[in-house]
Parts: sequence; structure tokens; C-alpha cells
Amino acid sequence: MKLLNTAMPSLHVFDTLESEVRSYCRSFPTVFSKAKGYRLWDAAGNEYIDFFAGAGALNYGHNHPSMKQKLLEYLLEDGVTHSLDMATEAKERFLERFRSVILEPRGLSYKVMFPGPTGTNSVESALKLARKATGRSTVIGFTNAFHGMTLGALSVTGNKFKRRGAGIPLHHTVSMPYDGYMGKDSDTLDYLESYLNDSGSGVSLPAAIIVETIQGEGGINEASIGWLQRLEGICRAKNILLIVDDVQMGCGRTGTFFSFEHAGITPDLVCLSKSIGGYGLPMALTLIRPDLDIWEPGEHNGTFRGNNLAFVTAAEALRYWETEHFAQEIAAKGEIVHRFLLQLVAEYPQLRGEVRGRGLMQGIAFSIPGLADEVSKAAFAKGLIMETSGTDSEVAKIMPPLTIDEPGLAKGLDILRQSMREAAAERDTSGMKRESK
Amino acid sequence: MKLLNTAMPSLHVFDTLESEVRSYCRSFPTVFSKAKGYRLWDAAGNEYIDFFAGAGALNYGHNHPSMKQKLLEYLLEDGVTHSLDMATEAKERFLERFRSVILEPRGLSYKVMFPGPTGTNSVESALKLARKATGRSTVIGFTNAFHGMTLGALSVTGNKFKRRGAGIPLHHTVSMPYDGYMGKDSDTLDYLESYLNDSGSGVSLPAAIIVETIQGEGGINEASIGWLQRLEGICRAKNILLIVDDVQMGCGRTGTFFSFEHAGITPDLVCLSKSIGGYGLPMALTLIRPDLDIWEPGEHNGTFRGNNLAFVTAAEALRYWETEHFAQEIAAKGEIVHRFLLQLVAEYPQLRGEVRGRGLMQGIAFSIPGLADEVSKAAFAKGLIMETSGTDSEVAKIMPPLTIDEPGLAKGLDILRQSMREAAAERDTSGMKRESK
Amino acid sequence: MKLLNTAMPSLHVFDTLESEVRSYCRSFPTVFSKAKGYRLWDAAGNEYIDFFAGAGALNYGHNHPSMKQKLLEYLLEDGVTHSLDMATEAKERFLERFRSVILEPRGLSYKVMFPGPTGTNSVESALKLARKATGRSTVIGFTNAFHGMTLGALSVTGNKFKRRGAGIPLHHTVSMPYDGYMGKDSDTLDYLESYLNDSGSGVSLPAAIIVETIQGEGGINEASIGWLQRLEGICRAKNILLIVDDVQMGCGRTGTFFSFEHAGITPDLVCLSKSIGGYGLPMALTLIRPDLDIWEPGEHNGTFRGNNLAFVTAAEALRYWETEHFAQEIAAKGEIVHRFLLQLVAEYPQLRGEVRGRGLMQGIAFSIPGLADEVSKAAFAKGLIMETSGTDSEVAKIMPPLTIDEPGLAKGLDILRQSMREAAAERDTSGMKRESK
Amino acid sequence: MKLLNTAMPSLHVFDTLESEVRSYCRSFPTVFSKAKGYRLWDAAGNEYIDFFAGAGALNYGHNHPSMKQKLLEYLLEDGVTHSLDMATEAKERFLERFRSVILEPRGLSYKVMFPGPTGTNSVESALKLARKATGRSTVIGFTNAFHGMTLGALSVTGNKFKRRGAGIPLHHTVSMPYDGYMGKDSDTLDYLESYLNDSGSGVSLPAAIIVETIQGEGGINEASIGWLQRLEGICRAKNILLIVDDVQMGCGRTGTFFSFEHAGITPDLVCLSKSIGGYGLPMALTLIRPDLDIWEPGEHNGTFRGNNLAFVTAAEALRYWETEHFAQEIAAKGEIVHRFLLQLVAEYPQLRGEVRGRGLMQGIAFSIPGLADEVSKAAFAKGLIMETSGTDSEVAKIMPPLTIDEPGLAKGLDILRQSMREAAAERDTSGMKRESK
Repeated sequence: MKLLNTAMPSLHVFDTLESEVRSYCRSFPTVFSKAKGYRLWDAAGNEYIDFFAGAGALNYGHNHPSMKQKLLEYLLEDGVTHSLDMATEAKERFLERFRSVILEPRGLSYKVMFPGPTGTNSVESALKLARKATGRSTVIGFTNAFHGMTLGALSVTGNKFKRRGAGIPLHHTVSMPYDGYMGKDSDTLDYLESYLNDSGSGVSLPAAIIVETIQGEGGINEASIGWLQRLEGICRAKNILLIVDDVQMGCGRTGTFFSFEHAGITPDLVCLSKSIGGYGLPMALTLIRPDLDIWEPGEHNGTFRGNNLAFVTAAEALRYWETEHFAQEIAAKGEIVHRFLLQLVAEYPQLRGEVRGRGLMQGIAFSIPGLADEVSKAAFAKGLIMETSGTDSEVAKIMPPLTIDEPGLAKGLDILRQSMREAAAERDTSGMKRESK
Repeated sequence: MKLLNTAMPSLHVFDTLESEVRSYCRSFPTVFSKAKGYRLWDAAGNEYIDFFAGAGALNYGHNHPSMKQKLLEYLLEDGVTHSLDMATEAKERFLERFRSVILEPRGLSYKVMFPGPTGTNSVESALKLARKATGRSTVIGFTNAFHGMTLGALSVTGNKFKRRGAGIPLHHTVSMPYDGYMGKDSDTLDYLESYLNDSGSGVSLPAAIIVETIQGEGGINEASIGWLQRLEGICRAKNILLIVDDVQMGCGRTGTFFSFEHAGITPDLVCLSKSIGGYGLPMALTLIRPDLDIWEPGEHNGTFRGNNLAFVTAAEALRYWETEHFAQEIAAKGEIVHRFLLQLVAEYPQLRGEVRGRGLMQGIAFSIPGLADEVSKAAFAKGLIMETSGTDSEVAKIMPPLTIDEPGLAKGLDILRQSMREAAAERDTSGMKRESK
Repeated sequence: MKLLNTAMPSLHVFDTLESEVRSYCRSFPTVFSKAKGYRLWDAAGNEYIDFFAGAGALNYGHNHPSMKQKLLEYLLEDGVTHSLDMATEAKERFLERFRSVILEPRGLSYKVMFPGPTGTNSVESALKLARKATGRSTVIGFTNAFHGMTLGALSVTGNKFKRRGAGIPLHHTVSMPYDGYMGKDSDTLDYLESYLNDSGSGVSLPAAIIVETIQGEGGINEASIGWLQRLEGICRAKNILLIVDDVQMGCGRTGTFFSFEHAGITPDLVCLSKSIGGYGLPMALTLIRPDLDIWEPGEHNGTFRGNNLAFVTAAEALRYWETEHFAQEIAAKGEIVHRFLLQLVAEYPQLRGEVRGRGLMQGIAFSIPGLADEVSKAAFAKGLIMETSGTDSEVAKIMPPLTIDEPGLAKGLDILRQSMREAAAERDTSGMKRESK
Repeated sequence: MKLLNTAMPSLHVFDTLESEVRSYCRSFPTVFSKAKGYRLWDAAGNEYIDFFAGAGALNYGHNHPSMKQKLLEYLLEDGVTHSLDMATEAKERFLERFRSVILEPRGLSYKVMFPGPTGTNSVESALKLARKATGRSTVIGFTNAFHGMTLGALSVTGNKFKRRGAGIPLHHTVSMPYDGYMGKDSDTLDYLESYLNDSGSGVSLPAAIIVETIQGEGGINEASIGWLQRLEGICRAKNILLIVDDVQMGCGRTGTFFSFEHAGITPDLVCLSKSIGGYGLPMALTLIRPDLDIWEPGEHNGTFRGNNLAFVTAAEALRYWETEHFAQEIAAKGEIVHRFLLQLVAEYPQLRGEVRGRGLMQGIAFSIPGLADEVSKAAFAKGLIMETSGTDSEVAKIMPPLTIDEPGLAKGLDILRQSMREAAAERDTSGMKRESK
């Protein structure tokens, strides 16, 4: 990797013309121009390793060669680009591939809905359908959940800052404690079950429970297999629909195509987006248990629910899932990351880091305020892009493309180690910042 | 145009695998494969003229050559595809172009927000910001408005069927009568003003009023210039923010880039999507009066708010707006359509059609139930794709790409005439269906 | 009447110990001690004529002799005072009397519910039952309506100041324009009907419409017979329940026992309180069309729903309704008031008064801000208690006990005339206050 | 006590004319005519001991002699009966007495609000003021709480059956687990505190927390002193208002005037009703920390907020609180009840009873479904009126007037013992009903 160019590109246009709401361009203050696989280059020619992967939208890396090839061919032959929900060959092929590569081998028989091209659209559609199918209005979500920014999805999102952005109270939802929320010795489903069993609890029988198997934005909180299975059991017993929001954790991020496969559960509804398009193009799916597919035609719609360029790359991306090989690869890389992080945390005990996560969704949670941001900032200066998460940005997140090769992974992890070392050097053994800085 | 192939492509995959919510593939039951300009071809080789234009997302036609060229170049050189809201060269170029081609010549100084790639995202962001900026919660929308399918946008949408799909009551909004709602002799803003002026009206001072200058989905209801100006005046007097949802009517559909230009009003917030990307790729903007841009970084976000492929084609699409020429062209074609429709309606008085709309958003409203659908169906059988709108699908809508040439326009209108003739033949002079059919 | 004692009783205890929310003790700043019929005396011995009648809770005057006698007897013999909704002899007698004196002669077959002892309890119970019976959630109320201060009743109340007091947004209700709201030439039910007929109006089919036949608190706005009948017709046609809130207008205030009798309509639910107890004791009823009485036992309850002292006086009060005599008397006195007010308004054209109301619910609406309050204040100084109403307190309200005799009525009206004269003297011919004051 | 008359009074009038919502007249199916102290008589002359005390509204017994005397005098001299919130001598006297007897000796400086005459009115006013004073909308209530039946109060009530009666979703509230809800080893405030401390919990900082120190309707669930103190501490630390709903537990029911005195906490707002009027007459207070008394005049109002007959008896009732004697008496009787219940439960281990409560709010919770109702029914047949509570009516409640004498108490408890014996006789050692019956 070349040294970072000191003459960084100017952000003037963004600073003057783009809304204050812009965010990542503040953490990664350069202007990017090209990208390939796990690498990005900015306009000044600096190269960056990507441990962020479009927040999970680039599991197959940037500008993947075979998808790019398919895309170019499709464009050149004037394939239909935009089609609302009219039938197209590109969509047909995606549907067929999704059935044969993903659904059938897993014994799943979901109907596929295209709810609009973003994760929040998928969540909104799942909540609507759950309410319609059950005739109930409450949906239970979990502490520190993140499901999206439109009002319905925001109502089941935990983050106070995001919720407050709604400008109105968010209703029809109840926030229950996620696995581990009350400490390791407490099974939080005891609370949930008490509320559901007790007719004096003040909580109505919900239409659905929506859950992420790992809460990425919430701080890489991982639900145990036992907890997920018990949750499914509660849903079955009470006739509550179980929605898994697999927008970020799906498409292989945790090691399997669906993040819930390892737990052996079968949600009634599944939300997919981000990497489902393969190439970083806007696309989302809602998977529906067939008997719940009681939508009227057009009851939920959207202009971009038929993004054919995404269908083309999405169909190609599914090649990765034709054999077990890719899952094994992710597991192996996940293991490398895990071992590395454990060692790193042990090296700097004063930084009080805790390793979290699974597959290629891992990270270090710091109990020292501000530290994750310091590490992330130091990493960027050295050419590594990595995000923080958690409501207090307390977690440094490792989310490379799943396709990253081992040298790339090693290089990125090495920068992380250097960044940690710097952060450690600025703090004394109690984790306090040194005065002399 | 070749005759329609009798062996239509099978919809089997869609019928068995896609959710019941699918809609347009039922009205236009074939599988499309290619598209160019104002024409589409299905998998059996049938050709169709497009008077639908992706519900307004394809104002520049399908696979526009120069945008396609830019897109291919960008892909070939591995330009960044997906970037969340990091700064990229593609985005920078779009912002610069948007400022110099659109904002500056019109004396507008909006800040630009990328709220996620769909219209409903833009509406949600505008509602949030209006509520945040004013500290008020109510938003006033209008009868027969359509603003989107996520909960916030749905709350200001009039359509009962769509609203019911929410599965929960929709709040914090009041529906006021759109221009013409109470008949031609009544200025509906009298109602609005009474409610706002009277401290006993039961309606709070709203954060914002959201309006479409023409209600496309609502049945091509057009607000008069005077009404729009009075509405702006009320907003100014009461310190209510005025939001124009220009998702469908913007980008030239009504003859000018923004649909409100002819009325000389300046909204506080503008929602743009659909054709802003130029090539039918998911993209949306929210334009914000600079002093209202009080977002915290990341307070509203979304995975696909940085769709660089769309930025590339969007920047190219703005070429159309560098001179007055394009607007003049739309006006001329709009005039052709208008004259044609007036004549057509006069030819078949028993069908009781009423010509509505402006620019290339025109249509015929029929007071005979089912007729617009019959006409649309007949047109499809003859190779013309056109949609109906209105809550009872009572309006046959003419929405070709703005770039359609006159022969194409003439051909499409001719099919429309034939379809009207057929519908007329099936009905007697009172508009009733003939028994013998 | 003796002259007002200049040494007015001190309000010190109230000023220091009672909440700032106290209100009428500010308009009528004395300490009352005794009352009889239409007269009140304060602790300093000043006598007042009551043109306020407990805001309609004292239609039979203060401490009515025969009711007092029944009350004393009941207390002396240790009749049950408090009984929740257990059966008591006092309640049984009231029910029998209410059926034979009120319901049967009018051909009404309502079931009687005791929802708690206040009007707002009755309104809450009616809204609950309407929602339960129809399975719908929206309730339509009217501009300037007043139905009570608990959250459900407040949601259908128009007054902005009262609504804001809720501290939260008020939902599930829509405010439609009351008769006359858009001027004399506009039938506001056109507006209501448009919203109900149009599936794009943004307003759902409501569970119920709640209406006052005259809006007392809202400023003595009277609905015409035609309007009420058309409203009933709309409700029947759409299967919407019609609730008449007769809390203030019922029990003879407008001339008949129910205020809707003259219009010949039959509401599905009727709310009664205030004067139903006869003696000013807390009591309320909800009358229910028998087939709508689908409550589960105890589904709505309340500690004071069985106020037996009120049942005793309520049963006695019904004597007034055994013949036509009382209604005729009210009509005669109403006529006296009406003629007087018309004349008074004519005498002082510069005060721009408008006579409103019917029966013994009449008043003068002034278009000059503050004038009604001035008149009311002047009247109090002369020994007349009268309230203002309307959202801007623009109406001086004449609401004596229905049992007032003609001398009392004349005396009160005379004070009103003097008060008007004073107010007129302080204003020039344009209604402006004179400088020299 | 005379034997129960076999010819019970007919309920025909109630069965045919009163709404199906009637409830207690089904549990106690007779027609009551007279009452004195802790005894009631029905129309057939049967005598009943009252262990129900108007659900807490008759703490001083029925028709208390000295209050009755005051009431008769007041009526005879035509004291003002109904006064809205005008100042009256009766109200003045009550306020003075309340200050000198209740507030001052306890070092409390509350302002006194008269919110309307029922507990639910008081709760609604407290919620409104808490929201106004903090500018926040959420209120936290607890599982199995009961606060009233109007929409605001119902929103913080736990009971599913009552909540469902609303017919609409209940919002702006969160239900947290009451003390003991998660078993004896779990401090439920850990849960509450986690939610409040975590900015990702999905629960906003609330305006207020509303709590009963013992949940009467919820099943006699008692909060520990430590729990209440910790709750107060959390409120103070977070600037959340603490509302104690003392409607049922106040006025001495638990042994002290306010039920929270023993815990040494000072709520910001206190709701009082039921026995505050002394004689079972409708009356309610809201006590307000002086600096929170930011109401505008009339911002909350109500027709019966000035029930002077209740003021008269309420002032007299306060005599009981002039010395320590009454509290000692309640404690002594509470001890008798407690010992009796413990013994009784021990006698019938197969009935699996658990003694709950404090002062003269005690009861037995049965884990055998239906048993509490059986006991209550058997007791009524023997001349004892006692209610069940808990969401599944699982608790037999002992709530005599506080003024009951020891012979009365003994007689009632003896009937309870007989009723338990009968219930036991009908069940085998496992608690199952015997077949042969």
C-alpha cells in the first residue's frame, strides 16, 4: 500500500452543498474515486483497505469482476433497466436462481416480495403484512435494535437519537430486552414471556416479534442459539409471527446465507437487502411464509421495486452459494479475525476491550468512552476504513468484504493493531488520556 | 410495429414464486426483455410503446444512449458503485451539475440531502425535518394525495386501500381538501384557512403542509396557480413549512424542471426521486431551505443513499436542462396530446370523458366505472402500455417519456383512439355495457 | 336585592392553597355560602342572581325544596349512599322513573349505563362502546365541540387550549365543520359527505359521529333541524353510530328533555350528566340502543357510578317531565329572553352583538374582542352571575335555572342591560375603548 | 345476624333496563336499601357485613353519624351544593382542614387541585400536568397497575380486558415490571434502570412514573419500602416526576393517611379520591408540588369539581387524623386480620393460599383458578360481602371499613373461615373439585 497522500482531496462541494445530515464523509474525509474488491482509492490516489464493506452491502467486494461482466452485457444489449413490478427476464432469472440456490436446498418455501430497494422498505412491508395477517397492531422489537429510518421501521429501532429524529412519538411497538441485556445470568426471554403470559402486563399480544440474530448497529450483540430457539418457541406457542431482519447479517455475513441457519429456526418473514444485489445496487426482498402471503395486488408498492441491474448482479452473486465452499471460507477468515482480536485485546488490557461477533461481523467493544472512535480515526489515517457501532459508538467493527483474501485481511488487521497501539500509547494504564498530548 | 405475438411468454415463475402483492405484471401480462427510448420488447419479440414511463421514473426514456455511455465508462474504470454517504467523485460531479444547471439559474439555494434512493424516503426525511425544525407534530396533506408506502409517507396519503395496508391507525396528519375537491365554485383553501385561524377547530398549527402540484396517482388533479400561490401565502403567514412532493411531477414531467416553477412559488422543502437518476436507477433528493438544514450528522441515514451509478446518469441527464429547448419540446408535445385528447373525448360523448393534466402528464377521467381499465387493457393488446390512476382507477393516464418523438407519440395516440373506439363499441349511448358480447 | 357589600370575603385560602388551575373563582371573586333557587349569597351577605346555573348542572335551581326533602329523608333513614354498581332501591326507583317518565313516552328503548358521575365519563364510555360495536377506531367530532377533559373526550373537543393541555397528540378523531362553520350559504355536511364517500379522502369510515345540538362552550352555535336530520341520514346510510352529547343541552335546557327531540332524530348513543341528578350532585348516564349494548360486565367501571344521593334527587326531578307544562314554561321564558336580547342588541348597534341560542341557552356573541368579558364582569359587580363562552370568550351566555320565575328573570336581564350600557359608554361608536377611562 | 331471607329481592328492573356492563350486582345479587357502619341491609331485610367498603370509598363506614349530622345541617341551611370551582365556605373549610390536619403535620406543601370528582379524573390531571411540566410525553406505569377507565388513565393500566375496552391502541406509556414481578430474587428496578440509562433501549426519558404502593385491583401486590425508595431515587436522578396513585390505598387503608408515609418518600404528584370525601360522595384531589403548579386557569376543568356536600363530609372525616389514635387502631386490626389469614391458610394447605397486603388491605391469593370466586360467593350467601381482585380474580380481598369494631371484624372473618371450609370440602387434597357434588 502506498503512503497516504498528504494533499487530500477537497470536500468543499460537500461542505457547502450537501445537507448537514451527511455523516460518513466526516469520518472518512476524502473523495473516493475507484474501488475493486476490498480496496478503495481516493481522488488523490491514496489506497484504502475496506473493513466496512458498505455497512454490509458489499459482501462480495467492490465491482466484482463476474458481476460487472454480466452488468456490462446487460447494459450493452439494452436489457430493461427499470420495470416497477412488471415481469422481466432479469427478474425471472433472479427468482429462479434464488429458489434453486437458496430456498430449495434449505427446505424453505418462502414467497418473494420486492418491497422497494432498501432494507427499511422490507421492514415496513413485513410489519404491514404481520399486522394484516394477525389483525393485531403491536410489534415487539428489542433493545438496541436497528431496523431502518422510515417511521414504521424506526418504531422498532432502539436508538434514542434516531427515534427522536422522527419528531413524533413512535407507537404500536414494545421494546423488550435482547439476549444479554440484563447480564449473563439472566435469560431476558423470562421477561418477554412474563409479559406475554400475564393478562395484566399492559402489553398486548403482538402481531410479530422482529429480531436481528446479531445486532450490528446496536454494538455487535449476538443472540445465542438457545435464546433464538426459545424465542421461536414462544412465537409458535402464542401464534406470534417471527420476523428476522437479516438485512445486515444475511447474505453470508455471519458465515451462512441466512444468519439464522445455525440456530435451526424458521422465521415467518425475513427481510433481506444490502448485499442481496451483490454489486452494491439498491435491492431488497421480503420473504413470506406462503400462507401469510395475503397481500392484495399493489397493497404495498414502490417505484424502484424492480431494479433490473440489481437482479442481474444478484443472480450472479448467488454462484457463491452453489457449494459449501464459500461458507467454509468465511468461517476460516472469521476464525483468523477472532483469534487476532482475542490476542489484541489481551495485549492491551488497559483498553478493556471485549471481542464480539461471529463470521466476518466481529469487533471490539471498549468500555472506555471515545476509544473506538480514536482507533477508527487512527486506522483511517493509515489507510484502513472501519466503522464504529453501538449507541455510544463504543464498538470498533471489523466487516471486510467476505471475499477478501488472506493478505488483505492480514494487512487490515495489522493496521488495526498499529491503531490500537497508538490509542494505548495515549492512555495510561487506567485508560485515561495522558495529559501531555 | 409488429403484430403482437400470440404465444405470450409464460408468467409461471412469477405466479408461483413472487408474492401476491405483485401488480403491474397483472395489467401487462408478459415478460419484458429489452427497452430503448419509448419502446419495450417482450421475450416473445412483441414491441410496445411506453406511455407509462416507469410511473414517471423514465422521463428520458429507456436506456438513454449518452447516459448509457457514461454508465459503461464508469463501470469499466471501476468507479465506486456503493458509498453510503461517503464523498465520491460521481456524487461531487452530480452536486456541482445540479447546482449550476438547476439551482443557480432558478435563483434557488437549497441544500441537498440524499435520504435513501426512493421517493418515500425523501418524503419521510422531509416530514422529519419539518417536525424537528418547527417543534410541531401535525402535517397537513390533501385528499387523494399519494406520497409513498412507508408509515410516515403513508400517513399523508389519501388512498383508503393503501392506508388500510398499514395495519395500524395513521396519525399526526390531517387531510384537507385539494383544489377542486368541493366543486369548481368553492376555493378549498377557505376550509384550510378557517381551520388554521380558529382556535376551536380541533386542528393544531401544523409543522408543514405537503402538496403535489398535480396529483398523479390521485387521478391527475391539477392545482391552479392561484391556489398554489394562496397556499404558499398561508404557509408564510402562519410560519408553516411548505413541502412540494415533486417525485412524480418533477424532472420535467409537467413542462419545467420543477412542477411549481410556473406558479412562482418557492417551497421550503422539495422531494425529488423517480427521474432524477435519469436512467431509471434508484435515487432521491430532498432539497432543504438552508436555514432549515438543522440535521445532526446521521440523524437520518440509509444504506443506499449513495448510489453512484445513479449519480453518473443523473449528472448526464441534466444536459437536457442546460437550455430552454427541452422545456419547449415538452410543451409542444403536451399541446399535441391535449388537442388529441379533447378531440377524442368529443368523438365519444357517451364515454363521458374529461381531459385532465398538463405537459406530458395528461389523461382522460371517465365517469363510467371500469372504463379506464378497459381502455388500458385494449391498448395493451395493441401494443401500448398505459396505466390508470385515481382511487377508482377512473383515469386513463398518458405519460410517455418526455423524449418520445412525434411519430412515436402519434402511434401511441392512435392505439389509444382505437382502444377508445372498441370500448365505445361495447357500450350503448348511455355508457352501459351491451348485453350481447 | 341588597346592595353589594363592599367588604368582599377574602380568597386568601384559595389563592395560597388551591392550584393555579382554579378558574371561576377568578371571574366571580367571592366566597359563596348559601343558595336557593336562582339566588346565591356570599359570606358577606351579598345576593346574586344566577344566570349560570352550574354550567347547566342546576337546571332546577339550587337546593330545590322537594328534592331536598327527599334527600333529607333518605339520609335520615340511612339509605345506601355509595354502592358502586350494586343494586339499590334508590337506583331501582330512578331507573323505573326514567323509563316511565322519559323513555316510554318518547318511544325510546335505550339501555341505561352508569359510566361514572361526570359528563366526560359518559363520553368516554360512548366512544369506547362505539369503537367496540363497529370495530372501527376513528370518531368524527366537530369544530368548536366540547366533550370533556379526559383524553378520550378531549380528542373530540375542538378547543386548542384545552387540547394542548393533554401534553400529547390526540388521535383517532377527525374534526369536521359544524353547521354554519363555513358561512350561511354552505352546508358543511357536503364536506363531511365528500370525505366519507371518497375512498381517497384520507379519512376512514368512522365508528361514530359525536355532536352537540347546540355547542354551549363553543359559543352557542346551533345546528339547524335540517342539518341534524341530514347528519342522522348520513350516519344511517354509512352505518356510522350517531352520538348526541346532551350533557349540557339535555334535561330541558333547550326546551325539551332531550335537545334533539325537536329535530325528530334518534341517536344511537346519548350522553347525559349535569342536571340529570337534579340537585347538582355528580351523576351521569349513557343511553345505549339496546342491540349495541354488547359490553362485557365491568368492561367500563368507576367507583362513583352509583351515587345514590343523586339517584334520589334525580328521580324526584323527573316530576317536572310528567306533563307538558315544564316544557311550555321553558319555551315562554326562552321567548322572553329572546325578545329581550334582540331588543338589547338593537339598542347598542355599536357593540355589534348577535343573538344566539334557543330555550334557556341563549346569549349574545360580540365581534368586539373582550366585550363579553367586560359585560360579564360588570354584571357580577351588580349581582348577576353569567359566564362567557366561545374559544375567544366572545359570547355572553344567559343560562338561568329553568325554574327561575319571571321577576327573577326580569331582574337579571335588567342587570344585563345596565352592564351593556356601561360597556357601551366606555366605547365609541366604532366599538373602540375610549381613551379617557 | 339474622339468617338470610330466602325470598331475595328481584333484580328485574336492573336486568331489563341497565346496561350489560353492570357488574357487582351480579356478584352480590340483591337490592340493597340501608347501610350503617360496616353493615348493609337489603330490601328483604337481610343483613350483610361489608368487607368491601365501596372498593375503598367507604373507609369510615356507611353513613357515618357525625358526617351525616354535618351533611344534614348543611342541607338544611341551604349551603351551596354545586359550585364548579367557585369559592365556597365548604370548600374553604375543607382546604384549611386538609392543610392543618394532613399536610402541615407531615411537612408537605402540596397545592391542591380539584380535577373532577373521580379517581380517574385525578390521574388524567396528573398525567397532563407531568407532561406539561416536563415537555415529555411518555409515562411509565407498572404491570398489573389500575389507574382508571378514561383513556389517559387506561393507558397506564395493565389489565388487558380493560385496555381492550378502549377500542383503540393506548399510547405514550410503557409498562415496567412491578416489585416482585420477576420473582423474589430479582429487583425489577434493575430492569427499569437499564432502560432509562441505555440510549438504545427504545424507551424515551419519561415525563413521569406512576405507581401504587400496593396494587389493589392488580391482586394486592405490595411494593417494598426499599423498592419505593429506590424508585424515588431513580426519579430524582433522572428528573422524572413521581406520581403516587393513592386513590385506593390512601386515606388510611394501609395504616397511614398516605400509603407512602412508611417508606419516607415524597411524590411530586399524588392522586386521591374514593374515601377522601368521607361519606362515599364523589370527590377527588390532585396534590401538586408547588413549583409544578404551572396550570393555566381552566386548562383542566369539570362540572363536578366542586361537590360541596363532599367537602362538608371530607372536612369532618379529617377528625380521624387529628391524633395518632386512628392509625394505631388500623394497625391493630390489620394485625388481627393478618394473623387470622396466616392461620387460615395454614389450616387448608390444599387450597394453596398466600397471604398478601398490609393494614386493612389484605387478602389471600389462591393459585387454584376460580377458588377466590367460590369463597366470595359462599361468603355472600352467609352474609359477608367481599370482592376478588387480580387479573384472574385469584385474590380474595379483605377490605372492611377502617372503623369496623372488633366484634364485626371477628364475625366477618368467621364467615370467611366457613366459606373457606366449604370450598375446601368441595376439593380434594390436590385442589381439584370433587366429582360428586
